[in-house]
Amino acid sequence: MEVTRKNYKDCLNTVYSAIEEADFLAIDGEFSGISDGPNASALTNGLDTPEERYTKLKKHSMDFLLFQFGLCTFKYDQTKSKYITKTFNFYIFPKPFNRTSPDIKFICQSSSIDFLASQGFDFNKVFCHGIPYLNQEEEAQLREQTEERRNQHANGVGTPSYISPSSSKEHVLFYLILPPFLFCKERYIQISKVDEEERKRREQQKLEKEQEELNDAVGFSRVIHAISKSGKLVVGHNMLLDVMHTIHQFYCPLPEDLQDFKEVTMCELITYTSLAELEKQLKESPFKPPQVETAEGFLSYNTAQEQLHEAGYDAYITGLCFISMANYLGSFLTPPKAYISARSKLIEPFFNKLFLMRIIDIPYLNLTGPDLQPKRDHVLYVTFPKEWKTSDLYQLFSAFGNIQVSWIDDTSAFVSLSQTDQVQIAMNTSRYAESYRIQTYAEYIQGRQQEKEKLGQTAKTWGEDSWVKPHYISSTTCGFGYPRCTRAAVHCFVNIINELISFPDEEENPQGTDPSNDADGTVTWQQASTVQGRKGRKKKKKSEGLSGLVNHLN
Amino acid sequence: MEVTRKNYKDCLNTVYSAIEEADFLAIDGEFSGISDGPNASALTNGLDTPEERYTKLKKHSMDFLLFQFGLCTFKYDQTKSKYITKTFNFYIFPKPFNRTSPDIKFICQSSSIDFLASQGFDFNKVFCHGIPYLNQEEEAQLREQTEERRNQHANGVGTPSYISPSSSKEHVLFYLILPPFLFCKERYIQISKVDEEERKRREQQKLEKEQEELNDAVGFSRVIHAISKSGKLVVGHNMLLDVMHTIHQFYCPLPEDLQDFKEVTMCELITYTSLAELEKQLKESPFKPPQVETAEGFLSYNTAQEQLHEAGYDAYITGLCFISMANYLGSFLTPPKAYISARSKLIEPFFNKLFLMRIIDIPYLNLTGPDLQPKRDHVLYVTFPKEWKTSDLYQLFSAFGNIQVSWIDDTSAFVSLSQTDQVQIAMNTSRYAESYRIQTYAEYIQGRQQEKEKLGQTAKTWGEDSWVKPHYISSTTCGFGYPRCTRAAVHCFVNIINELISFPDEEENPQGTDPSNDADGTVTWQQASTVQGRKGRKKKKKSEGLSGLVNHLN
Repeated sequence: MEVTRKNYKDCLNTVYSAIEEADFLAIDGEFSGISDGPNASALTNGLDTPEERYTKLKKHSMDFLLFQFGLCTFKYDQTKSKYITKTFNFYIFPKPFNRTSPDIKFICQSSSIDFLASQGFDFNKVFCHGIPYLNQEEEAQLREQTEERRNQHANGVGTPSYISPSSSKEHVLFYLILPPFLFCKERYIQISKVDEEERKRREQQKLEKEQEELNDAVGFSRVIHAISKSGKLVVGHNMLLDVMHTIHQFYCPLPEDLQDFKEVTMCELITYTSLAELEKQLKESPFKPPQVETAEGFLSYNTAQEQLHEAGYDAYITGLCFISMANYLGSFLTPPKAYISARSKLIEPFFNKLFLMRIIDIPYLNLTGPDLQPKRDHVLYVTFPKEWKTSDLYQLFSAFGNIQVSWIDDTSAFVSLSQTDQVQIAMNTSRYAESYRIQTYAEYIQGRQQEKEKLGQTAKTWGEDSWVKPHYISSTTCGFGYPRCTRAAVHCFVNIINELISFPDEEENPQGTDPSNDADGTVTWQQASTVQGRKGRKKKKKSEGLSGLVNHLN
Repeated sequence: MEVTRKNYKDCLNTVYSAIEEADFLAIDGEFSGISDGPNASALTNGLDTPEERYTKLKKHSMDFLLFQFGLCTFKYDQTKSKYITKTFNFYIFPKPFNRTSPDIKFICQSSSIDFLASQGFDFNKVFCHGIPYLNQEEEAQLREQTEERRNQHANGVGTPSYISPSSSKEHVLFYLILPPFLFCKERYIQISKVDEEERKRREQQKLEKEQEELNDAVGFSRVIHAISKSGKLVVGHNMLLDVMHTIHQFYCPLPEDLQDFKEVTMCELITYTSLAELEKQLKESPFKPPQVETAEGFLSYNTAQEQLHEAGYDAYITGLCFISMANYLGSFLTPPKAYISARSKLIEPFFNKLFLMRIIDIPYLNLTGPDLQPKRDHVLYVTFPKEWKTSDLYQLFSAFGNIQVSWIDDTSAFVSLSQTDQVQIAMNTSRYAESYRIQTYAEYIQGRQQEKEKLGQTAKTWGEDSWVKPHYISSTTCGFGYPRCTRAAVHCFVNIINELISFPDEEENPQGTDPSNDADGTVTWQQASTVQGRKGRKKKKKSEGLSGLVNHLN
């Protein structure tokens, strides 16, 4: 269902009840750009810490506009043994509410706009009919202003007994339609008298109208509030950016600190999990395509041919992938279960984990606890002249086997060696080098920490003014909003499975908490070794694309 | 004629010849926003100096995108005694040329976007089919890169004798279509041999293709170059912003200094004049509606009902107004002349004068000389607590008759008194005030100058980071791109007429320079007193809207 400013109010109850009845929700956003500073490969350096990634996205991605929000609700139908879906495509635009409301400025990135344009994205629909919104502070301000005006009127202050038609809208309360006695362009005054009862009736009407206008101004934020209040499971694809934009645009400015972000995100009761994928891979063994059906009166998507790149479709696909992955977890149970509910305990270990795109060794951001601390003993921090290219680094480290280069900026990069014991040798050989300099990762982190302490909180990694200068698109940019990083996403899924496997004999589905009423109330996890055995039997059937998954289960 | 990326190359010769044959050109731009900092009333303070206005527009308006460029060419047809017009609407978008080309970021202002949306502006056409462009530096860089690659190939460096289909486009030179011997998704290598003659032929083909791609990338900038090279008279409406955007987007970054801007503008051979208006007013006496006809095959506009707010239409209307104004000048000649050519000497005093919108006492920016230095003896600079409103200022100065308030920021404003002799009294009475402070304009300017000298060139009037914060739309905003400041614009026109009148007996139309071949080669200006006499006779006919004009001619 396409939702714009034109049909928004009529759709609101449909949206609310879809959320209310759903077993889980899938969301996806489309943005006017990704980075106003560094290019994609520097913005998502493979060796970012979660703090660094958060800080970079906050600084370089939040001035873009989230202008399409896709919501797909999934409700399991017991009798049909399939999910019933309802997809909503919300078009969002901060149309100024009145002359005192904020005049929002947002950045567009030409590569992102060009990508969306090539996918048939309808910009006219966004800009002409987008639904407005307010964040919480703006909403509070507007309510306060309305309240203040109301009190002034109640106290008789500023209540006009006559008004001119040219005065502002909120004073037109006692305006009666009289034949204008002057037709030329000059101002005229119209006088009318009203009795006390009529005055009160109109006052009441006006209050109701004001309330409605206020709700209109809050606009799309009401949908986000409903999602948040529902407490339903929300799944997304590479959704860190979606979550950050959602908080920033519809709730409040993002906190400086990652820890505070985690708290804001949780206290808003939005429960997120990160499961992402390529839908095609999840149609293949060992996954099974999920059974779904579109609710009557809703847009039906055909996954066989890829649709327009729109947020609703992406949310739908994300939901499908979640179902496939969840059901796949069921195959490890004894006896195996074909359907795993969104409320199943099996899913819980995946809650509140946001996939960190393109970070080599930290698959997800953990919203409800400390983040993973990967060992980076094999990583070197290298500085060099700005003329150097990746090939120069390969040449420099040619003696040390395979390396992986993660560019930081023009004159520095992380170089990961394949073997940690080579690190000391590399350090030794570089001692007398003049054109370049090598530090261990530990030395680098220590240096940065010291620098940070020296500068207080003002340490800056990227130039403040860099966004207006032209930046160059890296060849590693894999599109906009929906990067095809499937392998990495499945990787992330698998990493969480690994954690999960360390909880054998975990109870699934305690009586009464799962509305899907599975026949067997309890199930047991197979031991990791058994899983390996299973996988061994399946090995010949699995597709090449899932080798990462299988490797991780070893 | 609508010109997009799709038909751009086919239209180019039509555009070139329209420019070449024209007597004058009218231009107009549509932008993605106006101000990323102060609101409209602060951006265009009525007492700005030309330097201040230039600096503010440079700082707060240049990160928006000029995404529609209207060009209307006017050619006078002797036999028909009317102008033949050709209107072009160019849609402009900085689509990245390839993966190494700049990924431009631009700001959108929601009020401006909303205004354009309400006028039916087609954003899809801009973003999907906009013509790309490069500024001079980007063009030079691209040419250099191409040249470098060419030389490398010529020297045999990097010339691949075999390539894989996955390598980048510029290396696909020797790729021959062979039946792929592997159909799966794995990479494959194709080998082909070519003889020397074939190699040279392909090399030549490649050079031509590169040249074409390079021209495609320069894109719309070629039209601007053609306008510039033509040396034709270019008229616009409130065109300071158009000129600044045109230089900034298609030529080079704007210089810091107004003086340098004047030089850049002139050295680019773009001759501009500022004549702006409301078309309707210029249909009324003493003006006459101009005789125009649309060239065959070109979009015809109906001025009776206002069209979409598009750049081509605005350029067309601007041209009509110019003709009316120019012909009106002819009515002051003895004998009066109904048609004044765009090459007439009568027009010259208006050349290179850019209308300064909403500056009270400096009607235009003079590109070819020093700017007007208005007396501001009656102006006070007042600072006060941020709670103050305009009404507080009116109350404070209630003893001094009518005042005019020009807000600078939350805590300061210029207050113009109607009588200069009141200034000293106001200063005296304020001496012991604690909540506010008054300075004369002269004191204020002196203070600023001293501050500037202290800070070097880093004096900042507006907060550096202010653009991302929400700003409030002033009620004085009169729309986007096409503010209805007609009276002020006619004012500007009239101010220039006043200057003009100080050159009596100026020769118009020296033999051989005017292709329209007027019968009388010379004419004389009437003295100012005679003009007054003429106007006196016409007084009863004039419309009320032109009182400003007539007053100025007195």
